[in-house]
Amino acid sequence: MFLYELMPVQKAEKILRSNLNTAGTEIVNLDQTHHRVLAQNVVSLLDAPPFDRSAMDGYAVRAEETFGHSEENPVQLKIVDRIGAGKVSKMDLKKGNAIQIATGAPIPFGANAVVMEEYTQSHQDHLEVRTTVIPGENVSPSGEDFITGDLILKAGRVLNPAEIGIIASAGYSEVEVYNKPRVGVMVTGSELVMPKSQLEGAEIINSNHFTVKSLVESALGVPDMIHCVDDHDLVREEFLRLLKNNDCLITTGGTAISKGDVVVDVANELGEVLIHGVTLRPGKPFAFAVVEDKPVFMLSGFPVAAMVQFDVFVRENLLRMQGLERELNFITKTAARKIPSTLGRTDYIRARQEGDAVRPLKIKGSGIIRSMVESDCYIIMEENLEGVGSGEKCMVLPYHFLQV
Amino acid sequence: MFLYELMPVQKAEKILRSNLNTAGTEIVNLDQTHHRVLAQNVVSLLDAPPFDRSAMDGYAVRAEETFGHSEENPVQLKIVDRIGAGKVSKMDLKKGNAIQIATGAPIPFGANAVVMEEYTQSHQDHLEVRTTVIPGENVSPSGEDFITGDLILKAGRVLNPAEIGIIASAGYSEVEVYNKPRVGVMVTGSELVMPKSQLEGAEIINSNHFTVKSLVESALGVPDMIHCVDDHDLVREEFLRLLKNNDCLITTGGTAISKGDVVVDVANELGEVLIHGVTLRPGKPFAFAVVEDKPVFMLSGFPVAAMVQFDVFVRENLLRMQGLERELNFITKTAARKIPSTLGRTDYIRARQEGDAVRPLKIKGSGIIRSMVESDCYIIMEENLEGVGSGEKCMVLPYHFLQV
Repeated sequence: MFLYELMPVQKAEKILRSNLNTAGTEIVNLDQTHHRVLAQNVVSLLDAPPFDRSAMDGYAVRAEETFGHSEENPVQLKIVDRIGAGKVSKMDLKKGNAIQIATGAPIPFGANAVVMEEYTQSHQDHLEVRTTVIPGENVSPSGEDFITGDLILKAGRVLNPAEIGIIASAGYSEVEVYNKPRVGVMVTGSELVMPKSQLEGAEIINSNHFTVKSLVESALGVPDMIHCVDDHDLVREEFLRLLKNNDCLITTGGTAISKGDVVVDVANELGEVLIHGVTLRPGKPFAFAVVEDKPVFMLSGFPVAAMVQFDVFVRENLLRMQGLERELNFITKTAARKIPSTLGRTDYIRARQEGDAVRPLKIKGSGIIRSMVESDCYIIMEENLEGVGSGEKCMVLPYHFLQV
Repeated sequence: MFLYELMPVQKAEKILRSNLNTAGTEIVNLDQTHHRVLAQNVVSLLDAPPFDRSAMDGYAVRAEETFGHSEENPVQLKIVDRIGAGKVSKMDLKKGNAIQIATGAPIPFGANAVVMEEYTQSHQDHLEVRTTVIPGENVSPSGEDFITGDLILKAGRVLNPAEIGIIASAGYSEVEVYNKPRVGVMVTGSELVMPKSQLEGAEIINSNHFTVKSLVESALGVPDMIHCVDDHDLVREEFLRLLKNNDCLITTGGTAISKGDVVVDVANELGEVLIHGVTLRPGKPFAFAVVEDKPVFMLSGFPVAAMVQFDVFVRENLLRMQGLERELNFITKTAARKIPSTLGRTDYIRARQEGDAVRPLKIKGSGIIRSMVESDCYIIMEENLEGVGSGEKCMVLPYHFLQV
């Protein structure tokens, strides 16, 4: 298979995007929503704050009575009540009076400002105010944050600490979120064994089990893992079982382009293979099918190729399946050395950032897992580039930008 | 309390750093290590790959026999064996012979290169090779990735998919990681209630319960949540109970600087208060104590102040308690408008990035939780700055840089 027979990366991305399903929604307790995606618009049930409240520990006063007063020329008031947080004063504040007030407590009727404690001196019910406050000073007015009926958050937002806090403040103890997609993962390869300290014959350690499982977790999916030998009937059986129990399927191995290979053959029998071979390096033998109306992402057996294919083709689509559409940010850095590429092919080159520069790793090979551990970003060479020279700008995607 | 009586942020950071404990380590199955911090150096038990293997589907040959051959001038060989992945050929490859080989299978004895399937034509045991390969072509040599005894990963590293994959490849099915710190969280405030759609009197929704819980989770800690009214004896009782069951304690509320306040008072009775009041805005009333040899982080009751204090003083220290020391990256952007600040105070200003520029939000107030939801970064004004003018450079910390 030659380059011109492969599908351009952007075309493949479009096909993926238009063949997704969604994982549905559920209502969960707000305590359980961290890192979930909001599936409803949140409209506030309350004003926040719900009343004019004190922003400081001090004394509620009529501001006018402090006008012109200072350290040298204090005003004398009478303390007629004391209200802690969570308490309401039953008194109206009359002329000449003050009410001691805690941060967060409601401003008593008749008062319009709070004098900070450090600008006062008190003895029993006698208060000396040594400053001037203006109306509204140290008062957080009702509805300052938002009011009843305000649209607080829109569906499609990832719920991080601030978002969860504002939903609580808007009066909700539970909220509708997208289900995390259940992702069947079938790692194929008769040679694969679980980690052990002695290998025999042609055995290779099944590192894909561990990388793909945690990649799915990093995309907020729930992995359902299986290893399968390269046997057509077994692959077919597991393929159907995993699809039945999950929202989508990821496979590794068995996607060779030059000939029919077991995984792609099975996908072709059971459904429609829409992509087989893309202009991506590493990761050319990526394939994609729709089987039983569910997306099937077929990755390479080589660990690095599989990881790059996940980053390019899978992560954002697992996020879309749970209602999250985001735009990845890229940055521009200076190539620390010449980086060759090929016109018509998209390269994801493992690299390290060095200040404003970026240096491609020397180790390549799509089996070299060390290259993923030692790199901290991709240099992305788009199809229209034949490489860049040393000192030229290139497009960089730091791995941590991929995090949700 | 005035600015000169407050502790500079950097001095507070040093005190925190030198008063931490660690949460210990445990050995866990590699399947359960995603987002844990490695507590051991990992030295490979194996070579990877463990043997010279084929990088392609094709035919193992003696490279010399293909020299000078091409599409127009093919060489004829005899196929003497076929080996799939996971299989080993028992044959030595003799002159004039080829062995069909799958990607990943061991190179047979006597062969030194693999011809890709697409450059061949076969009929039964007859093979026509239409290209020249050089010795080593399409062969991944044994130990190419790493060899037995190589130091693969050092302790202190967060385990993401690539790291977990390489530990598996090095022969380990389990590994030593730091325990996640157990974090007691006491949200104080008699006025606080769980979310509901109608509030009465001075009630305020306890949004800190939700934000601090998920902040602790985002720092890979395990939160143990309690709400406590502002009562000295109850606070003292819960303080001791939470410290007994956890590695550290976070409180919110009750840290007013102007006078003794319930949480700081209790900390002072039970242990040593090392910090009370810092030159930070928002977040001035931050306090820190060591009680029963465990760190106690005392945050403000105001949601935004508490979140900023967590970002500045708590997150990195919870990470250190589980063996992770990292350097936060900052970026430089252009201020979209004048940003005032005060000499001697560190400001964390909620802002939005706009390309190369950054714009502070108009809404301020340490109770305005909307400002955290609508911003995507902090502008950090260090103590030696009196603000920056419009168009001047400033230091920016995007929120997603805080993610682990």
